[in-house]
Amino acid sequence: MAVPRVLVIPGDGIGPEVTDAAMYVLEKTLDMYGIDLEIRYAEAGDTAARKYGEPLPSETLRLAKNWADVVLKGPVGETARDVVVVLRRELGVYANIRPARSLPGVVSVAPIDLVIVRENLEDVYAGIEFSVPGAAFAVKVVTEEGTRRVARVAARYASSRSGRVTIVHKANVLRVADGLFRDVARRVLEEEGVAVDEMYVDAAAMEMVRNPSRFDVVLTMNQYGDILSDLAAQVAGGLGLAPSANIGDGKALFEPVHGAAWDIAGKGVANPTAMILSAAMMLEYLGYREAASRMELAVEQALAAGFTTPDLGGGLSTMDYARAVAKFIQ
Amino acid sequence: MAVPRVLVIPGDGIGPEVTDAAMYVLEKTLDMYGIDLEIRYAEAGDTAARKYGEPLPSETLRLAKNWADVVLKGPVGETARDVVVVLRRELGVYANIRPARSLPGVVSVAPIDLVIVRENLEDVYAGIEFSVPGAAFAVKVVTEEGTRRVARVAARYASSRSGRVTIVHKANVLRVADGLFRDVARRVLEEEGVAVDEMYVDAAAMEMVRNPSRFDVVLTMNQYGDILSDLAAQVAGGLGLAPSANIGDGKALFEPVHGAAWDIAGKGVANPTAMILSAAMMLEYLGYREAASRMELAVEQALAAGFTTPDLGGGLSTMDYARAVAKFIQ
Ligand SMILES: CC(C)[C@H](C(=O)O)[C@@H](O)C(=O)O
Ligand SMILES: CC(C)[C@H](C(=O)O)[C@@H](O)C(=O)O
Repeated sequence: MAVPRVLVIPGDGIGPEVTDAAMYVLEKTLDMYGIDLEIRYAEAGDTAARKYGEPLPSETLRLAKNWADVVLKGPVGETARDVVVVLRRELGVYANIRPARSLPGVVSVAPIDLVIVRENLEDVYAGIEFSVPGAAFAVKVVTEEGTRRVARVAARYASSRSGRVTIVHKANVLRVADGLFRDVARRVLEEEGVAVDEMYVDAAAMEMVRNPSRFDVVLTMNQYGDILSDLAAQVAGGLGLAPSANIGDGKALFEPVHGAAWDIAGKGVANPTAMILSAAMMLEYLGYREAASRMELAVEQALAAGFTTPDLGGGLSTMDYARAVAKFIQ
Repeated sequence: MAVPRVLVIPGDGIGPEVTDAAMYVLEKTLDMYGIDLEIRYAEAGDTAARKYGEPLPSETLRLAKNWADVVLKGPVGETARDVVVVLRRELGVYANIRPARSLPGVVSVAPIDLVIVRENLEDVYAGIEFSVPGAAFAVKVVTEEGTRRVARVAARYASSRSGRVTIVHKANVLRVADGLFRDVARRVLEEEGVAVDEMYVDAAAMEMVRNPSRFDVVLTMNQYGDILSDLAAQVAGGLGLAPSANIGDGKALFEPVHGAAWDIAGKGVANPTAMILSAAMMLEYLGYREAASRMELAVEQALAAGFTTPDLGGGLSTMDYARAVAKFIQ
């Protein structure tokens, strides 16, 4: 196999710090397993917008599209839409995979271990908005093909887990749009031999707090996935822990679920776990399963041993925590 | 004042049971305060659909629109949209008021005491959907006037509480539609002298679990309000406790946030608190503030004294719980 090409975009706010920390743990893992990656850095976000006049500089987009196999991206600030929604579209990464699970040593609201598979390119995120005097409109878009391909990804995840998918929608009100998503998703999942159930999105938000362990794989539309994944991350113990993978048929993009957190930026106190786990998801995607598991396990071992950053009640700096995690990679 | 006319729609599933229980407590309150209401009953929901071929029989709609001052409605089943979304539109009740607060004797995820003011007639609930081969669409509608009137309601609630409103939207992605809602709402609230802040809907879902006491009045769009109000109800201790008021410039409709719960229907175990508190919101709306407070206090006293239905770990039947609550009205 050719050496995989990784484009790293540190992003804004705490982005550079959590990226440094994650790269430290990643390098240690690569060494340990003798994995070779070609790594380049690029800029995007509020800071890039100030420097170059555009949040997603054309050189960054070019590298992401034409050079990189995968992108590892930190959080971006107020320009997030122009960076991440555009990157998702340009890279064709139609499935957003967001695992949420209770971790040792971390207080979760309730035991949780699920994966949200969020459709990533359609819905009100398709960017179709317009206005007339006194009113504004956004069009929610659902296509059969868009639903089919993301449902296939959910089926794949289900088959490596419990084999169960919950489709989350609001087809009791949105009979046509959510109805299409529900029907097409159900057909694909049933064809793939997956056990399917359904839940309305309002009920799903409630269940995510009441009894999250009833979920295994959750397949849902773009905006419901946005909301439910933040919620699930919080139930699992906080946004600082939640990684994600955006995958398509060619490229892939890995990023923490959290934002730029400008309020704590530059202080060295940010929790880099989400970014470390995003890097682990990237290794897994690239086929380095053992190395990926090792990184995840190292995070669990560090947390279980009480190594934590201030958001989880600990006293470690971002880099000291990363060093603690890296020590478990051996 | 003329005797207020109340149309009671018991609805489906546990609807008739929780309605009986709520009417028992309501009658006791009316007696106690010498309040006269003219009460009539009407049918709507899945059962009505089977009996009359339509979930919202025209006689029910006629009574709601032309006879009643207010409607007190139980939950309805799978036909909910054809009953409640239609009733909301026909009655012009553009603001949906959903309080969520920790109650004595009830385990809440975190201390919470907020009111969600949900725009109730626009957004993707406007009913504009269409499809072409292979794709389906729904149009999210936001009008200036629709936003203004619901923002004024939020301002009213804020002024009787902390004077603070959080506008919840996703204007970083939906710049035009959510942007209009955010801008118009902010302008109205600032004109009314209310302190305003904002939050993205995904972050709001997270905060609803992490730190719900940071919210006081939450002003949001129809579907975000649907999701966040179920979530807030669960954080406060469960859907069995969450009442709501749908108000407009003329009519008003009161209903529990929960659904028909067919699985426990007919067993006499449903928690009627949400329906009792919805009746209290109705009294308050009709100007009987003291009686309304008395009903709410009676619920709190009963819960604090350990009287609870099975969903909250108690052993009381729906009616025994109602009798326990009514005993505190004296
Ligand atoms: C920043 C924003 C555009 C983005 C989204 O809504 O998808 C973020 O919230 C996320 O979930 O990755
Ligand atoms: C039943 C459904 C149409 C309704 C809604 O989505 O408004 C319900 O969930 C609610 O919140 O009152």
